[in-house]
Amino acid sequence: MFICTGYAAQSADAPLAPYTFERRDPGPTDIEIEILYCGVCHSDLHTNRNEWHNSVYPTITGHEVVGRVSRVGSAVTKFKEGDLAGVGCLVDSCRTCENCAVGLEQYCIPGATGTYNSPDKHTGKMTYGGYSKAIVVDDYFALKIPTNLDLAAVAPLLCAGITTYSPLRHWKVGPGQTVGVVGLGGLGHMGVKFARAFGAHVVLFTTSESKRADGERLGAHEVVVTRDPDALKPWAGKFDFILDCVSADHNINAYLNLLRRDGTLCLVGAPENPQPIAAFSLLGGRHSLAGSGIGGLPETQEMLDFCAEHGITSDIEMISIDQINTAYERMLKSDVKYRFVIDMATLPAA
Amino acid sequence: MFICTGYAAQSADAPLAPYTFERRDPGPTDIEIEILYCGVCHSDLHTNRNEWHNSVYPTITGHEVVGRVSRVGSAVTKFKEGDLAGVGCLVDSCRTCENCAVGLEQYCIPGATGTYNSPDKHTGKMTYGGYSKAIVVDDYFALKIPTNLDLAAVAPLLCAGITTYSPLRHWKVGPGQTVGVVGLGGLGHMGVKFARAFGAHVVLFTTSESKRADGERLGAHEVVVTRDPDALKPWAGKFDFILDCVSADHNINAYLNLLRRDGTLCLVGAPENPQPIAAFSLLGGRHSLAGSGIGGLPETQEMLDFCAEHGITSDIEMISIDQINTAYERMLKSDVKYRFVIDMATLPAA
Repeated sequence: MFICTGYAAQSADAPLAPYTFERRDPGPTDIEIEILYCGVCHSDLHTNRNEWHNSVYPTITGHEVVGRVSRVGSAVTKFKEGDLAGVGCLVDSCRTCENCAVGLEQYCIPGATGTYNSPDKHTGKMTYGGYSKAIVVDDYFALKIPTNLDLAAVAPLLCAGITTYSPLRHWKVGPGQTVGVVGLGGLGHMGVKFARAFGAHVVLFTTSESKRADGERLGAHEVVVTRDPDALKPWAGKFDFILDCVSADHNINAYLNLLRRDGTLCLVGAPENPQPIAAFSLLGGRHSLAGSGIGGLPETQEMLDFCAEHGITSDIEMISIDQINTAYERMLKSDVKYRFVIDMATLPAA
Repeated sequence: MFICTGYAAQSADAPLAPYTFERRDPGPTDIEIEILYCGVCHSDLHTNRNEWHNSVYPTITGHEVVGRVSRVGSAVTKFKEGDLAGVGCLVDSCRTCENCAVGLEQYCIPGATGTYNSPDKHTGKMTYGGYSKAIVVDDYFALKIPTNLDLAAVAPLLCAGITTYSPLRHWKVGPGQTVGVVGLGGLGHMGVKFARAFGAHVVLFTTSESKRADGERLGAHEVVVTRDPDALKPWAGKFDFILDCVSADHNINAYLNLLRRDGTLCLVGAPENPQPIAAFSLLGGRHSLAGSGIGGLPETQEMLDFCAEHGITSDIEMISIDQINTAYERMLKSDVKYRFVIDMATLPAA
């Protein structure tokens, strides 16, 4: 074991503060990554504030992790010391179930191990995430990070990026299709970038007129401001696929009705409350309401390689770690364009 | 025009009673069918009682129609006088939109013409359905009826049959798959028969212990009685496809959680109220909640031919037309095994 520093919440209503803890030394198949940047995901806030009612304190969150390999286990061939490496939402899974066997570890049937607040097979405690100086992970769960992109802006690809890339790929979004993206936040802004890069005609739906210009800059061919209740009407039956990136309560039926026959609306945001769905929103055109969760390791690597080839990163605002509590308050007001990333060099020494 | 007799509701709270009205004479592409049997669908009751708030009185319902061709238009080659013929839920559509063009007239974009309570292009009034002596329909919207099946028991195939056949085919249900059917009524009992005929392992979910034996007789390999809240637990993650035939409020999330990764739950019942759907029921295994409505003309014919080949019909209770009001009361208590069919020979003369 070695001593590591990080930022932790000690209870649901405590602000995050410096914390010192132990991590395991790298085993034969592990690498240790010195963390350089960590993206700030809304899940971090949910977990630190126990909004999903499953937090075990102290919580050390962060699952958009990039850094440099600082130690390498004896059996590791994928990385060498000094390489860039990343860790997303998962650090372990059963590796043998029918979903793991096809590289869809996010759907591991016995349950994957999350990067934070998940039972840790090695320590018997909970996993601790990326708001910390270093992380140790089995090399299968570490990603190779492209060297031609802004490293800080790569960090959010590991959650916001793969969460939007994966469903757009799974439902085969591409040229000739009209694709909607609902909500312009951390997820939505990546959804717009990927849908555009895949060749679709991209329509962004946002409640905020002030996001129109950004939507267009990020790649949307059209932006529909949904404050006007009639704004959706011309779009009825027009969409092959809609990526719904909204985490708040919203009228999903209104968007289901925009699908063409056999169209799919996929949720990647996770509203806390069940949303009312009308049967006729589905029956009328054989529509599907689906959900998709992050992505497996092979697809996450594919996504990073795609981003390297196409010059895609997240739009970020860099913060120092002592700004994290303020950043959470701004996130709650959607006041971030479009992802906070922590410069981990600002973490105080132990 | 010619004088036709039927059974109509004159208002939402009036019992159905004999009624005389006019139908058009067959045009060049029309056939006239002397109706022998008409199935009783829950939609008939909804329409006669204005429960969908769109009924125009008098209403003459019935869209599970079988009979014998009594007149043939000059351009008709598909039928000759004396042939058996059937009419399902549709009597017209635009015939040109992208959905009609591929034989999915049920999803006609300008809107298909329902067999009853739909604006009738020919008369300027509403369409009148199968609780009547005869019907006149463009031959494209008439089905050829197999001669080797019990004719009365064929009638419900035209709505209950195709409504369950179509999604099971669309989602490619077959050998090696585990398929759930939720609810054993008019739709569910056909869903069980078709899923079994397609080679799947069929599990019926019913709230009623008294339906266990029937479920097995109809083809279910296993019957799960869901009154026990723990009854679903062993089935988590086991289903490739679930056909949800329930029209009342029910916990759809509980069934979504029974799907394997990438599994689909398809609604064919249409609960009146929107049902609450939890995002995590979908995200956790890339599940889809879909809907499907009846079927197009080509697939309805395919279904009838499949039934002829495999000896499949509906389980019915025959009634005379003067029993229709009593039959509705029994339907409301799910007291029918599993579809009422009206013997139209019991219709009084004009």
